[in-house]
Amino acid sequence: MLTMQDALSRLTAYWVDQGCLTVQPMNTEVGAGTLNPATFLRVLGPEPWRVVYVEPSVRPDDSRYGENPNRIQTHTQVQVILKPEPGNAQELYLNSLAALGIDVAAHDVRFVEDNWAAPGVGAWGLGWEVWLDGLEITQFTYFQQAGGVTLDPPSVEITYGIERILMALQGVRHFKEIAYAPGVSYGEVFGQGEYEMSRYYLDDADVETNRVLLDLYAAEAQRMVDAGLPVPAHTYVLKSSHAFNVLDARGAVSTSDRAAEFGRMRRLAGEVSQLWMARREELGHPLGVVPPTPAATAPTETEASTGSRQLVFEIGTEEMPPAEARTAREQVRRELTERLAATRLAHGDIRVLATPRRLVAIVDGVADREQDHVRTVRGPKVSAAYDAAGEPTKAVQGFARGQGVDVADLQEQDVNGTAHVTVVKHEAGRPAAEVLADVLAKVVAALRSAKNMRWNDPALSFTRPVRWLLALRGDEVVPFAVSALASGRETRVHRKAATPVVTVNSAETHLDTLAAHGIVADPDERRAQIVAAAERLAAGAGGQVDVDGERALIDQISYLVETPTPLLGRFDESYLRLPEAVLANVMRKHQRYLPVRGADGALLPCFVAVANGDIDEDLVRAGNEAVLRARYEDAAFFYRADRDTPLDAMRARLERLTFTDKLGSMADRAARISTLARTLASSIGLSGAERDTLGRAAELVKFDLGAQLVTEMTSLAGVMARDYAAHAGEPAAVAEAVFESELPRNTGDAVPTHVPGALLSLADRLDLVAGLAATVGLPTGSSDPFAVRRAVLGLLAVHRTGLVPVSLTEALAEAAALQPVEVSPKVLADSGEFLTRRLEQVLVEEGHPIDRVRAVLPHAARPALADRLLHQLDELVKDERFRALVEAIQRARRIVPAGTPAEYDAAALVEPAERRLDEVVRGIEVPGTDLTAFLAAAGKVTEPVNTFFDEVFVMAEEPELRKARLGLLATVRDLGDGILDWDHLRM
Amino acid sequence: MLTMQDALSRLTAYWVDQGCLTVQPMNTEVGAGTLNPATFLRVLGPEPWRVVYVEPSVRPDDSRYGENPNRIQTHTQVQVILKPEPGNAQELYLNSLAALGIDVAAHDVRFVEDNWAAPGVGAWGLGWEVWLDGLEITQFTYFQQAGGVTLDPPSVEITYGIERILMALQGVRHFKEIAYAPGVSYGEVFGQGEYEMSRYYLDDADVETNRVLLDLYAAEAQRMVDAGLPVPAHTYVLKSSHAFNVLDARGAVSTSDRAAEFGRMRRLAGEVSQLWMARREELGHPLGVVPPTPAATAPTETEASTGSRQLVFEIGTEEMPPAEARTAREQVRRELTERLAATRLAHGDIRVLATPRRLVAIVDGVADREQDHVRTVRGPKVSAAYDAAGEPTKAVQGFARGQGVDVADLQEQDVNGTAHVTVVKHEAGRPAAEVLADVLAKVVAALRSAKNMRWNDPALSFTRPVRWLLALRGDEVVPFAVSALASGRETRVHRKAATPVVTVNSAETHLDTLAAHGIVADPDERRAQIVAAAERLAAGAGGQVDVDGERALIDQISYLVETPTPLLGRFDESYLRLPEAVLANVMRKHQRYLPVRGADGALLPCFVAVANGDIDEDLVRAGNEAVLRARYEDAAFFYRADRDTPLDAMRARLERLTFTDKLGSMADRAARISTLARTLASSIGLSGAERDTLGRAAELVKFDLGAQLVTEMTSLAGVMARDYAAHAGEPAAVAEAVFESELPRNTGDAVPTHVPGALLSLADRLDLVAGLAATVGLPTGSSDPFAVRRAVLGLLAVHRTGLVPVSLTEALAEAAALQPVEVSPKVLADSGEFLTRRLEQVLVEEGHPIDRVRAVLPHAARPALADRLLHQLDELVKDERFRALVEAIQRARRIVPAGTPAEYDAAALVEPAERRLDEVVRGIEVPGTDLTAFLAAAGKVTEPVNTFFDEVFVMAEEPELRKARLGLLATVRDLGDGILDWDHLRM
Repeated sequence: MLTMQDALSRLTAYWVDQGCLTVQPMNTEVGAGTLNPATFLRVLGPEPWRVVYVEPSVRPDDSRYGENPNRIQTHTQVQVILKPEPGNAQELYLNSLAALGIDVAAHDVRFVEDNWAAPGVGAWGLGWEVWLDGLEITQFTYFQQAGGVTLDPPSVEITYGIERILMALQGVRHFKEIAYAPGVSYGEVFGQGEYEMSRYYLDDADVETNRVLLDLYAAEAQRMVDAGLPVPAHTYVLKSSHAFNVLDARGAVSTSDRAAEFGRMRRLAGEVSQLWMARREELGHPLGVVPPTPAATAPTETEASTGSRQLVFEIGTEEMPPAEARTAREQVRRELTERLAATRLAHGDIRVLATPRRLVAIVDGVADREQDHVRTVRGPKVSAAYDAAGEPTKAVQGFARGQGVDVADLQEQDVNGTAHVTVVKHEAGRPAAEVLADVLAKVVAALRSAKNMRWNDPALSFTRPVRWLLALRGDEVVPFAVSALASGRETRVHRKAATPVVTVNSAETHLDTLAAHGIVADPDERRAQIVAAAERLAAGAGGQVDVDGERALIDQISYLVETPTPLLGRFDESYLRLPEAVLANVMRKHQRYLPVRGADGALLPCFVAVANGDIDEDLVRAGNEAVLRARYEDAAFFYRADRDTPLDAMRARLERLTFTDKLGSMADRAARISTLARTLASSIGLSGAERDTLGRAAELVKFDLGAQLVTEMTSLAGVMARDYAAHAGEPAAVAEAVFESELPRNTGDAVPTHVPGALLSLADRLDLVAGLAATVGLPTGSSDPFAVRRAVLGLLAVHRTGLVPVSLTEALAEAAALQPVEVSPKVLADSGEFLTRRLEQVLVEEGHPIDRVRAVLPHAARPALADRLLHQLDELVKDERFRALVEAIQRARRIVPAGTPAEYDAAALVEPAERRLDEVVRGIEVPGTDLTAFLAAAGKVTEPVNTFFDEVFVMAEEPELRKARLGLLATVRDLGDGILDWDHLRM
Repeated sequence: MLTMQDALSRLTAYWVDQGCLTVQPMNTEVGAGTLNPATFLRVLGPEPWRVVYVEPSVRPDDSRYGENPNRIQTHTQVQVILKPEPGNAQELYLNSLAALGIDVAAHDVRFVEDNWAAPGVGAWGLGWEVWLDGLEITQFTYFQQAGGVTLDPPSVEITYGIERILMALQGVRHFKEIAYAPGVSYGEVFGQGEYEMSRYYLDDADVETNRVLLDLYAAEAQRMVDAGLPVPAHTYVLKSSHAFNVLDARGAVSTSDRAAEFGRMRRLAGEVSQLWMARREELGHPLGVVPPTPAATAPTETEASTGSRQLVFEIGTEEMPPAEARTAREQVRRELTERLAATRLAHGDIRVLATPRRLVAIVDGVADREQDHVRTVRGPKVSAAYDAAGEPTKAVQGFARGQGVDVADLQEQDVNGTAHVTVVKHEAGRPAAEVLADVLAKVVAALRSAKNMRWNDPALSFTRPVRWLLALRGDEVVPFAVSALASGRETRVHRKAATPVVTVNSAETHLDTLAAHGIVADPDERRAQIVAAAERLAAGAGGQVDVDGERALIDQISYLVETPTPLLGRFDESYLRLPEAVLANVMRKHQRYLPVRGADGALLPCFVAVANGDIDEDLVRAGNEAVLRARYEDAAFFYRADRDTPLDAMRARLERLTFTDKLGSMADRAARISTLARTLASSIGLSGAERDTLGRAAELVKFDLGAQLVTEMTSLAGVMARDYAAHAGEPAAVAEAVFESELPRNTGDAVPTHVPGALLSLADRLDLVAGLAATVGLPTGSSDPFAVRRAVLGLLAVHRTGLVPVSLTEALAEAAALQPVEVSPKVLADSGEFLTRRLEQVLVEEGHPIDRVRAVLPHAARPALADRLLHQLDELVKDERFRALVEAIQRARRIVPAGTPAEYDAAALVEPAERRLDEVVRGIEVPGTDLTAFLAAAGKVTEPVNTFFDEVFVMAEEPELRKARLGLLATVRDLGDGILDWDHLRM
């Protein structure tokens, strides 16, 4: 049995053998090994650095008194930095697992997208969490920025979570059971400390003391920055960070505190980083400077394949995130298509396939040469080409020289009736290799993703490093180089394969070669395999997989593996007592497992996990089951604790949760929501039952933010409220209302279906918007830390249910009145405008023509009404009568000068057409804000209006008559006032 | 080449192989690995614990900007705890050196007394610093107490100084040159941090911030103690300790701050320790409980040697401190002598020899049995033994029963003329083995030293662990057991010998056996060997060793080795430019080297070191030379820096040195000394030259406390002042005066020989006494943190030079007037009394009879005068005339009632004898405070006084006459008033 201390020493020894030096953990509390100066400062600047060290990482927030099987306030990281990144860090990493005795070939080891960012210290990188049979054991990052400084060269950062690895290796279910040393368990060594430090962080740390410490540390950090000493400055940044974390764990940090503190820390970390780099430069970079990776040279051309042959072009990468792989596939297809089209190289169909590790373009029938080409270049007019003596003029001589021909070789050609001197050029097509080399190099260089990174390549930048290029036309390598990469005929298969690098004979055999190594290049095929296997496995367990419902997840999984190996795992039935949202959330979101359901749609105690490649299925299944069990155990732990907690006690915890400094605690916010919901209710009229439900639900609203499970998985807010409320014996309607108060949680989410829930939901969002608009300001650009935009979208969606027909403008004013700060009329007006703009955007995105959207926007305060009008418009625009009516009204609106009152002296009218119009208009009664009713009532005005315009000259000479006619038309103009902004409508 | 990181991993691996677990360094700054809870808390209580870990130890005070070759603010310790101590920890330790590739056999590895104490956390232990060729590389301690709690069982604590070991192993001269990892030096990894953290600690740390931190940490520690959480409490104790160390390095800690802070920390550490033990007990001691070492059983007796044979008894120990070995030797001799005397075992001479590792008692001619013995026990009188019938009475029956004999066996014997019933017992002598077993066991159990420790033995307690007992009478083992030890015939020779355990055939061959293994058991012989070799080696280098002057050092060295192996080392001549005090101080005190001097007494650039046993002489010489070079390099570094610093700049640093909170900075104190010295000078009259010298010297006084070399070696204060002052061009007299101002530095030290120096010295000590008496109080019992007692002794010694004939009482009042605090009359009076008591003690200790001392004590304020009077007394008491005079005066004093005035009406006197006395008395003129003069002047009164008493009845009936006679005698009584307190004198 490998003990934990042996594991630490083996890992360290392994990396020392790879040229790392090893240092000691930081002697002040850090949240992660990244913060140790051996990482944080050393990744800066051009000096090389390779280091491995152990870092006990302190996260006060993870304190669980040692009771939780997986969560501990101090966990042990092994941190590795490789600078520059060596190009094969993933392979080195896998060997390190082997050094720990892990049979990498038997296990399912995967690199799953996980982009790391520590905005508090201006640091980020792209990379993965490494999964061992579904268990996250390592964070693997290409470190791109620290202290706001772009890292050049970037480093590879590998962070092992040692307790997790050891629990998996030793097969124990609680961290305390880890064999730490021979005969001594982890619990025996660290158990008491874990309990006591948890007590300190969660219960006993003095808040005022830690606030003072935080400020003292930050001030000392600043002083050291000013003194030009980055090392002590960094130490104090770390101390301030820890003090902040302690306050956070004590629930003493408000959102605005957090933002302010992060700002301060980011600034300090930035100054420290700049200072460090300056000092290192002053010291002449004592460790030397990393030389740039040399540019590659293209391989020498091989003998050319003749005739049309297939082209295969594989861009090999490290594991791309699924979404990036999909867009990269499309990008390659487009680039290749366009760039080939710009050549004269004949070719057939272009297909692009993709896996996490490769983009494979296949172009059928690529000719061996470009077609030849004749091109005529036009010169001066013939009339200007020769002088009186018939000698070529200067102009024509210059032209010939410019084209590289003799004047004697010039020809003449008629262009639009004028004779010009011309040169006719016969251009030979280039060989395919030359054309393709150019095209393919450009395709590689053009690769971009939503979020790009740098690695050891001097020029490329992409979602993950590009590691190899295979390019074959037929049997022949298309020879080119891009930056540090040269094309060739080698591909890479699974890293754990006996020969991970494989030579490909010809383009035509490439997919077969991959297939022979188990790699399914076609995503659709992988998807089909996954679906088929999942259905089969689920059926074997007496259930089924909701293939349609899980479409997005299955898509994602297809891009997580190259060789889908689905397997069925089980979990203990007892966990089915957990809420389905918890179960499914963990399976889908955390583990990418497909839930298996019975015929009734209820979850069965099993799942389909999809491993990659050839594995020991029993081993991998057991591993995945253990991971899920651990996660469910966590959830069950919290769930039990929550259910044992009275609702009032949970609600009482809201007092300790700060919403923002100026807007008070979450308890204050809940109280405002409650009051506001009841105020809104009074304006719409509720049934007695609804009133009772609202009354109780308003008392409870947001109480589950005090629940441990919700603290753990915030996405469960509302869901758990419903569960806990029901469990506590609240009426079903009340439980539903507290659930619905959280809806919609994001775009496309369900909306409340009952009035009490809708009222609470609206009140919640109104409170947030009013309070934040007045204190933090409305969101601008991409900065929206409090998700005000999402709240506004929620507001609109809830209103559009029609359950709460209030004016949002008025409701916002009510919400504003309840805030503990003044909300000025300007802020209210701005908020209304913000809401209008969001509604406009939503409606347009839903596919409504912009003209109609703008026509209904005057009702932005009542989105439900705007909605109804839009839907009426959708129908009515097909109705000739309506279109004619609109045109008639718009005609009237165009001709009547602004400010003309809708009054006239009917007696002044003289023509029959105008008298008829007068008569019809007088008979029209507009019945509220409804277009169908409006058409029914006002439709009869169309014909008289048209006749009027045909027969009557509005601008009569006599002033009285002209005034009466304009007044009559103004009355027509105003018929639909308040229903639409008619001017915007385009018929 | 073994890199530092390899060394760390090898050492760790070695100890892990010995069953240690390994943990990470503490994640808050600690000054030593001891403070890590893996030591500090785990040594408490009965649970077993074995651990090894690396601890970067932060000592702000050791900051040197990375410039000093050896001194660094963060050095790397490897810390090992073995609990319970395994009995062979020294051997395990030596193997760990071997694991580092050190050839232990070739080197001189020694365990040199070094008792460790950290009073700030209530911790101490006994042990050694381990020397590798003179270089201290490890602290090896039997940990006895932590947090004020006695450790049961005690632990072994081994602390390696890694940088030192690596510098020695790699043969580099500056810590920055250590190869830390392949191709990377220590300086490259840690150099910048070393510089910057030095800057922080020495120059840039904000004092006010760190004061606040200190208090916050201590308060948080207290809160956690109150909350019953020892782990976070301990963490905060550590943080407070570091904050204190930062303040200290910034020179912001006064002596009273220090005392207060140590008190607080000690209290907190004690509470933490108690709490930890209580918690562990509550948890049921999760790691189990160390079983007690079982008691040994005596070996089975072997066949007895017959006839008289030698007894050899060897008590084998771990390395005893030299002083303890010497007293233990004497103790064994005394114990053995007394205990044997209490037996009837015939024996010859008793000799006891000793080495650091053994006490060897040799008793010649020990008989094989005790002599037999007849003993008579007296019973009742015969008259009470038989009743009238001649039957034995109850009394006699009881006596017989009590003695275990029949009444019939009783005999009768005359005792002082009365016949008693008796029992005559013939007691056979016990065999020698039995007698000796008892005696020797008691000798071992009785072993005690000035400072005793516990180890894994359940009952013994001694200066260091006792590890074996050899006891042979002739060929035979004296079989006994004491606690966990049993006697035998095995001894141990050098640990690095091929067979470290050797069997001894007989008592008579023991010393030969030892000698055969190079062990010289006789300290006198070792001493003679050392002296002879040192003289020879010194002569070879053209010099000599001052054998008389270095007597104490040579004595000490003789007890540091079992096999003296003197060798001559050299150092670079350039170091001879350092002051001799520095050179010699380092050689003697730090390294126990014998300085070698030329014919002129000046130091030569070489030394004699004495290694132990069979070594590679070149290797060991080179090692010792390197150590001395490093130390001299340090000193030279500071010396150069100091000489480059203007005196004013050094003096300016005194502003930053706090004397005490209430008494201001050292600069304030120097100013007071200066003023006071000049005030005193004005009362004694100086020559012009003296006045000039004093003027300048008073400006400079104490300036060298601002020198780096003095900060390093405080014992050089004054010496360096003289050197630096002379170097800066001050007149020689001034340089001498600032030197003398520091004299005497301790009891027996030289005193000033010139008036300016004497004035400054007095002023210094008067200032200290006056200020501290008023603020901290005069010393009581053993508590004298500011060494007031020493200052007072200094005062007395300086005054006794006679150079400054002032009244110390008046001078103290002058000093008091200069203090920044009020010094009350009571404090002054108490101080005077304190001074008187010290003088009394000093004079008595110098051998003066107490009566004479008391007689001169009225002059305690002028010790020089008291001195002179005492010396006069020494002579005069031999003078019959003086003795008679004293008796005459005392006779007068006795008869005259107290309060009788020395007046009388001469006319009232009637008897010739009284009229004669009157006449003589009137003619006496007492000439000042001088006994010889007094005798000369007053000697003539003796005879008339005696005649008066013979012939005159003082208490005449007539009142007038009586009054006159008493007045006359009162006049005699008062003749010597103010010279002595005559009543005390015993003639």
